[in-house]
Amino acid sequence: MGQTLSLRLAYDGAGFSGWQSQPGRRTVQGVLAEAITAVSGETVLPKGASRTDAGVHAVDQLVGFTTAKDLAADVWQRALNAHLPRDVVVLSATAAPADFDPITAAVKKRYRYRIHDARTRPVLAQPFVWQWKTTLDIAAMQAGAAHLVGEHDFSSFENPSSPRQSKVRRIDAIEIVRRQGGENVPGAEVWIEVEGNGFLYNMVRIIVGTLVFVGSGKRSSDWVADVREARCRAAAGPTAPPQGLMLLRTDVPSTATAINDVPSS
Amino acid sequence: MGQTLSLRLAYDGAGFSGWQSQPGRRTVQGVLAEAITAVSGETVLPKGASRTDAGVHAVDQLVGFTTAKDLAADVWQRALNAHLPRDVVVLSATAAPADFDPITAAVKKRYRYRIHDARTRPVLAQPFVWQWKTTLDIAAMQAGAAHLVGEHDFSSFENPSSPRQSKVRRIDAIEIVRRQGGENVPGAEVWIEVEGNGFLYNMVRIIVGTLVFVGSGKRSSDWVADVREARCRAAAGPTAPPQGLMLLRTDVPSTATAINDVPSS
Repeated sequence: MGQTLSLRLAYDGAGFSGWQSQPGRRTVQGVLAEAITAVSGETVLPKGASRTDAGVHAVDQLVGFTTAKDLAADVWQRALNAHLPRDVVVLSATAAPADFDPITAAVKKRYRYRIHDARTRPVLAQPFVWQWKTTLDIAAMQAGAAHLVGEHDFSSFENPSSPRQSKVRRIDAIEIVRRQGGENVPGAEVWIEVEGNGFLYNMVRIIVGTLVFVGSGKRSSDWVADVREARCRAAAGPTAPPQGLMLLRTDVPSTATAINDVPSS
Repeated sequence: MGQTLSLRLAYDGAGFSGWQSQPGRRTVQGVLAEAITAVSGETVLPKGASRTDAGVHAVDQLVGFTTAKDLAADVWQRALNAHLPRDVVVLSATAAPADFDPITAAVKKRYRYRIHDARTRPVLAQPFVWQWKTTLDIAAMQAGAAHLVGEHDFSSFENPSSPRQSKVRRIDAIEIVRRQGGENVPGAEVWIEVEGNGFLYNMVRIIVGTLVFVGSGKRSSDWVADVREARCRAAAGPTAPPQGLMLLRTDVPSTATAINDVPSS
C-alpha cells in the first residue's frame, strides 16, 4: 500500500551544501533522507521543488516522498522533527495524491534577497544579507527590474549548468523595497522579491547582481533590457552571494498537496 | 584638551559575556576598550548606559568615553569599526559635552523580547528567540502586563544583585503583539516590548517569565498584581533566557549627546 506525503520545510542554509544530496556533503535532502530512515527504516530520497544552493535559506521548500509506514501525516511530522538537526524543521506534513511530484506541483515560487546597504556592517542580520557599501538607488533598480517581468528567455541569467530544454521562464513580479533591517536602522536594507513560475540555475542571484550594478550607478536601468536580449551570461552582472537569498514561498494548485481537497466523487 | 564622544552600538550578544568588562571574559566593553587603544594608544574604559547580560543583544547601546586623540567623530567611528570584531559595530559617533555620562543621559530605554510559540522549532530565528511549546494567550498577558505599567517598587522582578538604593522604577509601556517571525509563519512569534526609565538586574527577563506563566494559563492576569505587591523575587515567574532579549532603543534628552544641539548663547 503505502502513502505519499507532502512536506513544507524551513532551513538555515549556512550549514548545508544546498538542498541536493551529494556524497560526503551535508545537504538538506541528505539529512531529511536520514530522518526518514530513522522513522520508518526505509531508504527513500525525498524530492524537493527547489534545488537551493549551498548557503541559501528556505522557509517554504516543498517536498514529497512515498512511504510504506502507516503513520498519520502529523505523526510523521513530529517524528521527523525529532530526528532532524536543529537547522532544519518540517513546518507541515499533508497526505498527498500517489502521483504527487513537488517539482511539477510547484506552479509558482517567490524568493527574497536581502541587501544591507548601510555604511556600517550588519551584525545581527549578517547571516542573512549581502553587504553593499554604498546606498543603492532603488528607483533605478525598479526601472531595471521592469525589463525582466514577463515571459522571457533568461539565458543571460543562468550560470553554466546541466543543459535544459528551455531557458524561457515567466517572472510575475519583482518587488524592491527598503526595510528597517536586523539592526533596526531605518532603511538599512533593500529587499528584492522575485516571483515566477520557475528559475534557472542561480537566476535570482544573477538578477540581484545585475540590479545592484544599476542601483549603484555602474549601469543604466535600460541596460537590463540589453542584458536580457544578449542571451549570454557574460552580459549580466555578478552572481550575488548565497546568504542573502531565501526561498520564501512555493505555491501549488489548491488540489495538488492535500487528498482532502480532491473531490471524492 | 581632549574630547568626549557619544557612540551608539549594535551587537550580537551570543559571543559575549555581556556588556561589562570582566577579567578573562570576552565582553562588549572589553573589545570596545581594545579598539579604542588600537586607535589612540589610550587605555580607556568606555561607559555604557545599559549593562546587558551575557547573550543579550543590542541595537542601540549608548556609550561614552573621553579621549585626547583629536579626530572627528565620524573618523573615530570608522577607525573603531575597522578594529572591532564582526559581531559589534558602532552605528554612530557624535561629539558630546565634556560631562556626558551615558547612564544619567539615558532617560528612557526600550527592550524587545521575542518568544517563538509555534509548535515547530525556530530555525532561522533560533539565535534571537525563546521557544515556548504551547500557544500563548496574549490578551491574558496584556491584562497581566497592565499591572506593571506606572511607577512601582519592582523588587519582585530583580535577581540577587549588588544592593541599590531604590527598587522603584517607572514603566511607560508594555506592548505585546503577535508577529510573523523568522520562519515567515504568520503569528509564530510573540513580541513583548517594555519601555521605562530604568531597569533592575534581569528585570525585563523576569517580567517576561512572569507574563509567560499568565499566557500559558498557569496563573491569572491579576496574579501579576500580587507578584508586584509581594516585593519578593520568589513570588515572580522564572527568568526568561537571554537570547530572546534585545536592547532596542536608548533615549536621551535632545541636548544630551550632541554639542551641536546645545544653544551656543
